[in-house]
Amino acid sequence: MLVLVGLGLDTKDLTLRGFEAIRNADTVYLETYTSFAPKNYIAFIEKEAGKHIETIERHNLEDDLKETVALAKKKDIAILVPGDPLIATTHSIILNEARKQHVKTEVFHSPNVFSVAIGESGLDVYKFGPTATLPFWSEHYKPVSFLDVIRNNMENKEHTLLLFDIDQKNRRPMTIREAIRILTDVEAQKKTKTITKNLRVLILGDLGKRSQRIIDVKLGAIGEKIEKELEGKVLSIIIPSRLTFAEEESLQRITKQNQ
Amino acid sequence: MLVLVGLGLDTKDLTLRGFEAIRNADTVYLETYTSFAPKNYIAFIEKEAGKHIETIERHNLEDDLKETVALAKKKDIAILVPGDPLIATTHSIILNEARKQHVKTEVFHSPNVFSVAIGESGLDVYKFGPTATLPFWSEHYKPVSFLDVIRNNMENKEHTLLLFDIDQKNRRPMTIREAIRILTDVEAQKKTKTITKNLRVLILGDLGKRSQRIIDVKLGAIGEKIEKELEGKVLSIIIPSRLTFAEEESLQRITKQNQ
Repeated sequence: MLVLVGLGLDTKDLTLRGFEAIRNADTVYLETYTSFAPKNYIAFIEKEAGKHIETIERHNLEDDLKETVALAKKKDIAILVPGDPLIATTHSIILNEARKQHVKTEVFHSPNVFSVAIGESGLDVYKFGPTATLPFWSEHYKPVSFLDVIRNNMENKEHTLLLFDIDQKNRRPMTIREAIRILTDVEAQKKTKTITKNLRVLILGDLGKRSQRIIDVKLGAIGEKIEKELEGKVLSIIIPSRLTFAEEESLQRITKQNQ
Repeated sequence: MLVLVGLGLDTKDLTLRGFEAIRNADTVYLETYTSFAPKNYIAFIEKEAGKHIETIERHNLEDDLKETVALAKKKDIAILVPGDPLIATTHSIILNEARKQHVKTEVFHSPNVFSVAIGESGLDVYKFGPTATLPFWSEHYKPVSFLDVIRNNMENKEHTLLLFDIDQKNRRPMTIREAIRILTDVEAQKKTKTITKNLRVLILGDLGKRSQRIIDVKLGAIGEKIEKELEGKVLSIIIPSRLTFAEEESLQRITKQNQ
């Protein structure tokens, strides 16, 4: 049997069901491609579940996928995934391989950036258009499709959740300064008048963590003070469409609480 | 202090953090307006946390909101919510009142129908348009706005998650037959050619529960056999837009697994 267990967003953010599955597993792996798990969280699970947890790289997981799944025919294998196993990263590839090899699988869900962003923002869940990701640009790879998502959502009067990339090589999240640079560069290129100094954004730092910080600000007003406040945090932003009175009220409560 | 603890979708689907918060609370309430919590789940928490859990009706919660929040000035109060506290139902009203009364709050997130539907469907999270709810119709209240959401999403090549209503009075979920009746009635009225016999839908039954059942079917092919299979389950559907090869592969795996 092969189980995927979501670790959620902060220490002890996995479910009781997920924890039981870890305790029942013969072998426990930790996959950390798209997100990081706090070290003390992993140490806590190892101690409480009485298991050694082996970290595997995503590319190893994919290269050795057949072997890993084959192992699960004889033993119970648990793969731990920060966030939710089927949201934060698509682990469908593992489940598809398991299906081919007739290996039983189970997924233990958990809090994830996707639903927690919407919940913590206080904005109406029914007013969110498609989510997009803001990727790091490299010399030869400068994707801009996130701009179309933002524009379409604006036209449809929908909020946009924009998840910032993580620098895998250097194990660090994208900073707000880097994000603004990419956003303004693409605007300079495309001239759509979407990304302006007056654009209101809701910056979500360390969502779902004890260190969570939410800032409601216009793009042009983000300076050193805010950069400092967000230093080291995993970030995403919401670009809100027109807000209702109830949404504004919640937003005021949230940003005041975070001051 | 006032804490909101998400119970998730099935027994033991709350997080370790959430469970600790319950154990630390002086008074524990259960709110069950939009969703039901299995009785044995509540009994389990009472036993393991050593607390009595008092069920409160949503309207009582709202009527007595000021008093409940005021209580939290002197004691630690935990309100348990099926699903995620800020997704399944918007509990922002409680948090806003707490803010007014300067009562400290904390929210413990959990698996919820919103992110689990998207994850379990195997469809691309970035391709979902806004979610909608299919409400029960009464003689004088026949809302149809969900049709616009479906149509807009289709035009934008986006998937639609459509959550079915729950009959609060009779404590039962909407059946697939009732849902099809409303969908075809609104189509007969509006004549948009959106809801046809050939419309492909992904029916999600008891999402995130051990009894989960996912069916990939055309609307016109839903008959007694499928109705029987879904009996008593909490339902929602996804109306998929054009699928990629990877999405089709995942869908095949999922619906086979559920046979």
